Amino acid sequence: MVSTKSLVAATANGTRTSSLSSSDLVLNLSLGDPMMFEPFWKKMSDKYNVTIGGGDLMSYFSDGNNVCWFLEPELGAAIRRLHGVVGNAVTDDRYIVVGTGSSQLFQALLYAFTTPGGSEPVSVVSSAPYYSAYAEVVSFLRSELYKWEGDAYKFNKKGAYIEVVNSPNNPDGTLREAVVKNRTGNGNGKLIYDFAYSWPQFTAITGAADYDNMLFTISKCTGHAGSRIGWALVKDKDIAKKMTEYITISSIGVSKESQFRAAKIIEVVCNGIQNVGPVKSENFFEYARNILSKRWQKLRETIQNSEHLILSKYPQQHCLFSGKLTETLSAYAWLESKDDTQDCNEFLRGLKIIGKSGKICGAHQKFARINLMCREEEFNQFIERLSATRGKGIINGH
Amino acid sequence: MVSTKSLVAATANGTRTSSLSSSDLVLNLSLGDPMMFEPFWKKMSDKYNVTIGGGDLMSYFSDGNNVCWFLEPELGAAIRRLHGVVGNAVTDDRYIVVGTGSSQLFQALLYAFTTPGGSEPVSVVSSAPYYSAYAEVVSFLRSELYKWEGDAYKFNKKGAYIEVVNSPNNPDGTLREAVVKNRTGNGNGKLIYDFAYSWPQFTAITGAADYDNMLFTISKCTGHAGSRIGWALVKDKDIAKKMTEYITISSIGVSKESQFRAAKIIEVVCNGIQNVGPVKSENFFEYARNILSKRWQKLRETIQNSEHLILSKYPQQHCLFSGKLTETLSAYAWLESKDDTQDCNEFLRGLKIIGKSGKICGAHQKFARINLMCREEEFNQFIERLSATRGKGIINGH
Repeated sequence: MVSTKSLVAATANGTRTSSLSSSDLVLNLSLGDPMMFEPFWKKMSDKYNVTIGGGDLMSYFSDGNNVCWFLEPELGAAIRRLHGVVGNAVTDDRYIVVGTGSSQLFQALLYAFTTPGGSEPVSVVSSAPYYSAYAEVVSFLRSELYKWEGDAYKFNKKGAYIEVVNSPNNPDGTLREAVVKNRTGNGNGKLIYDFAYSWPQFTAITGAADYDNMLFTISKCTGHAGSRIGWALVKDKDIAKKMTEYITISSIGVSKESQFRAAKIIEVVCNGIQNVGPVKSENFFEYARNILSKRWQKLRETIQNSEHLILSKYPQQHCLFSGKLTETLSAYAWLESKDDTQDCNEFLRGLKIIGKSGKICGAHQKFARINLMCREEEFNQFIERLSATRGKGIINGH
Repeated sequence: MVSTKSLVAATANGTRTSSLSSSDLVLNLSLGDPMMFEPFWKKMSDKYNVTIGGGDLMSYFSDGNNVCWFLEPELGAAIRRLHGVVGNAVTDDRYIVVGTGSSQLFQALLYAFTTPGGSEPVSVVSSAPYYSAYAEVVSFLRSELYKWEGDAYKFNKKGAYIEVVNSPNNPDGTLREAVVKNRTGNGNGKLIYDFAYSWPQFTAITGAADYDNMLFTISKCTGHAGSRIGWALVKDKDIAKKMTEYITISSIGVSKESQFRAAKIIEVVCNGIQNVGPVKSENFFEYARNILSKRWQKLRETIQNSEHLILSKYPQQHCLFSGKLTETLSAYAWLESKDDTQDCNEFLRGLKIIGKSGKICGAHQKFARINLMCREEEFNQFIERLSATRGKGIINGH
């Protein structure tokens, strides 16, 4: 549980810097706070606002006739429209389950796949480097239902397992497919597709994903991380029911205010793309890709002559959404030390930059993850500190 | 997990009736949906509204310097003011941890009390009849950290345990104190005080509770169940940190929109009581007590000559909030069959009324819980159906 502990410690110690006034301040880029998107929404904030009356949204219930009885119908409709407009996932013949972020939905799927519980915990794997929260979430309550087994490439047990496929992958931005079945022939796996970053600002949309269990989150789609809204597209009714049961027991539903606002935000995004609606607005995904593209360009320029760090290249593909040849622009820089013995995160600490160590993502310590979705001033400070190391042979933090 | 399953089943089958047009419709009063409070908020809805701009509340963070880094500072201040105005709990020297409802905070406390985990799961108990969700929440993931052991009156193991004290108690409205320590002398217990119903509409406020770990929820305080906002007042910093860690792992914080709105709603309640602020408004708790008082009177009149059912009496105490002698007005009717062999919930089903069976609350099946915080039309329909049984010797549902 290192990542969450470091998160809590970093924030409780006040080391997070929202406005950087001094190069002495520690720059915490270890988390995925998507503040890059804020200027888009601030610019026309008053046109995109929502108003909630004192007597609105008071009941536990949103739609008693829906399997997911706490899903606001407007949000369900907005989600179906969004996937239709973007073309990244099939929503036909799918149940939508809403969650307090996609983290809760991941746990709901684990529960849905493993109850009633067998005599042995079901193995949960994801190919390394993996999103460190998977390991935390699976392990933190010491459940007898499931057990974290780490890297899908190393897993070779017979019998039931659950594999999480995250594409584009957090932390390293690679495009992923299921590993265990293809490698070992073990066909007893349940698959969870985590598509948090499968949006046009991050990657080419090459077709509508059509898997049984797909997770999405508003946090990385539009940048509204504080709303804690995620959704699952689920093919099997019984799985959707079990997921709903999980969320009922763990939190008796999901904030209605956040659902209401998320529906509005998604409507604005779709209107902007389709050029309809009362308010004329930009294409959000183009706007976001444009910023991220500039950041990647600046980062590559900064690192190309670095004595310390390497960045890998990403593929280009034809994007059906933009109609262009498009490369993956990962939400994170997955930095690799040139020297295999170097702890990349320690090296960054010497520059007063906090990243997430590759170690807790099931990878080597020569890797570290840096949030590129941070605020503009934080990104510029990051580049400035990296630039300062060029040719100076900086000593790492050991 | 019967209660949640029946919840999901009841709603998914469309048997929940928000507007009753026919006496044939099933009247589902098994849940604690607090719609009784809606008219107060609807009446002046536009004065109590909140507006959230498209670019507001986007970050995961609310206050990086706070132990609970996802707590909106305005909500923290509103909570402290509310307890000060009502006089029901001490907030000095307490950390506030916000949760997605108090259910999530209950789980956060279990985690805080039991990690790092010992070789044996810690026993969790509550005196019967208890809120059935305690049993569900403790058991549903088969955690090795803690284990549900049921009725605190029957618990007599040595060593560590956790006791939940719910006062006034859901389901039966009684005032509660800790049981295990007083009965067995076992002083190795951690106590969780669930004060969901410790508000002036439900009970006399006899002093400011000063326990180490106290849980509250906006759901029963003001009726905003859909917001999923609960809070804990916690004395020990390390416990508050661990709870924060739990919520970080399970849902990466709590909806900012709901927190923002809850702060506003609480402000309105306090302004109404203190007669300050721009909008003149009624004393919410007086309003709510008045409705609940009329419902109890009507219910007692209906049941007093019943051949089938009994209702127990509640004590009167001097309320420091209202300055009056005040009896407990439970949020639920805890109905008891006169005939010990009768299944009370089955009897109610014969009247097309769904309650919660005493059985899943650790009590006898001759008891059933009925939500008295329902909508006015639902309450009237409930009374009408009960009245129809008088002198008719209705046969129960077996």
